[in-house]
Amino acid sequence: MSLDSAQLETFAAVVREGSFDAAARVLNVTPSAVSQRIKALEQAAGQVLVRRARPCQATEAGAPLLRLAGQIALLEREALDTARGSGAGTWTRAAVVVNADSLATWFMPALAAVPPELRLLFDIHQDDQEHTADLLRSGTVMAAVTAQNVPVQGCRSQRLGAMGYRAVAAPAMFATWFADGVTPRALADAPMLVVNRKDRLQHRFLRTLTRRELDPPSHYVPSVTAFEEAIRLGLGWGMVPDLVADADLAAGRYRELSPGSRLTVPLYWQHWRFDAQALTALTEAVRTVAAATLR
Amino acid sequence: MSLDSAQLETFAAVVREGSFDAAARVLNVTPSAVSQRIKALEQAAGQVLVRRARPCQATEAGAPLLRLAGQIALLEREALDTARGSGAGTWTRAAVVVNADSLATWFMPALAAVPPELRLLFDIHQDDQEHTADLLRSGTVMAAVTAQNVPVQGCRSQRLGAMGYRAVAAPAMFATWFADGVTPRALADAPMLVVNRKDRLQHRFLRTLTRRELDPPSHYVPSVTAFEEAIRLGLGWGMVPDLVADADLAAGRYRELSPGSRLTVPLYWQHWRFDAQALTALTEAVRTVAAATLR
Repeated sequence: MSLDSAQLETFAAVVREGSFDAAARVLNVTPSAVSQRIKALEQAAGQVLVRRARPCQATEAGAPLLRLAGQIALLEREALDTARGSGAGTWTRAAVVVNADSLATWFMPALAAVPPELRLLFDIHQDDQEHTADLLRSGTVMAAVTAQNVPVQGCRSQRLGAMGYRAVAAPAMFATWFADGVTPRALADAPMLVVNRKDRLQHRFLRTLTRRELDPPSHYVPSVTAFEEAIRLGLGWGMVPDLVADADLAAGRYRELSPGSRLTVPLYWQHWRFDAQALTALTEAVRTVAAATLR
Repeated sequence: MSLDSAQLETFAAVVREGSFDAAARVLNVTPSAVSQRIKALEQAAGQVLVRRARPCQATEAGAPLLRLAGQIALLEREALDTARGSGAGTWTRAAVVVNADSLATWFMPALAAVPPELRLLFDIHQDDQEHTADLLRSGTVMAAVTAQNVPVQGCRSQRLGAMGYRAVAAPAMFATWFADGVTPRALADAPMLVVNRKDRLQHRFLRTLTRRELDPPSHYVPSVTAFEEAIRLGLGWGMVPDLVADADLAAGRYRELSPGSRLTVPLYWQHWRFDAQALTALTEAVRTVAAATLR
């Protein structure tokens, strides 16, 4: 059995754009053509490949075909470039997933270090570093910055370095809640900042420091900028990467809860085991910038 | 028929925390107790209220009950505070949804302006301003910063002001792609930055400027910090709020594509039509800071 490449491309577009209509728009075909191609591909595969939700997602059976579609797109692009003698102005999509703190600090300079003549269009997803590998597993992205070292099936894993995190608070907040010291009792009562329900960094810090499972009152602030601003404004304490905390500590806007205590989160670059030029160049840029930035 | 308040509280915890297990943890009960309460509430309502997914969500039938649960929690808190003579150290959850640019600029100072003795714990959700009203409709949040003026059922809508956006690029990127002017042809070819598939600001700007429907090659960068950094690094042009663009323009890191052309996005504060002290204080703080910051 051979799979139809237009059908695979259509399948990838539906998952990437999130709906049959949006896929039809980017492919310049009618929605009914999209629907027919997906049905035909599902018949050929003997499996339901698209979960018809908002947004549309690949089913578990769809994951390997989604990855295949992405790999074929990269190969086609390279073959065409070689045939034409150079990149003839066409762009290639490169979907990656990155944890929020990397995205806000060192990751964009890494992308900017990829040679522009490769004409990569970055499709960035953001998730907690403990969960970024999921999108790699589902075939949605070709590479991930992740806290997981064990390679996802069909992927390579390389260590990038570690992000160091320190627990910080505004001096006024510190004075209000930790006047009698950073004790387990004060830590149980003082308001804490958490990015979202997936973010367990603050709880890990509490466990390391107190050897207890504390669950303080928590604000949820799902934006790196807003999270750091919330600390400066005294809404609570939280874990901030060294890469951004240093300036605020030096300027006296932050105060460390436990000077010298640092959580380190090792980060890995996992990517398809697949030697397309685009992916190789991206890996090279990511490793170089990470080596210069992370611990 | 009267609804059981422990069951309602459990229902709200399941949706807020995303799973039966997580709800059990925050409520300090067993997962099977959570499951029994949800089943009993669904029997009382005669409807399925929780979509058992990852994360768990309220069904359409669940939305009014989710809002009810939130309102009862606010009322209970006020009654207890009054009975005890003051806020006796208990915290109240206040769930709100905000567009990313507001969250990264003026919204945290607004939250910091809420009197701390009200002991509000903010549970912030982030979405595109065209979509924030959805979480209000679903009963997940008590208030939203939204581009939609028409009140959601049971909500009040108040104008906060407008965010102004300008199209900017790094000088080097501008020189590469717009050497012959910011023409429709150059705009169709030049790489553009887009936050995610919901973000239509760049397309609106293109339509306003060229009167055409252009769809340039697009990078997707779902983080305010990374989006602004990507522009500085020359990956593409994009729409940036005046509140942050001014400094970069003055320093020569950004160049305007069409000096003087500005998109304005009117923002509204929509909240439950419900006069709880917490909500009133939050509205007051949000309106005051917005009035001082927005246009």
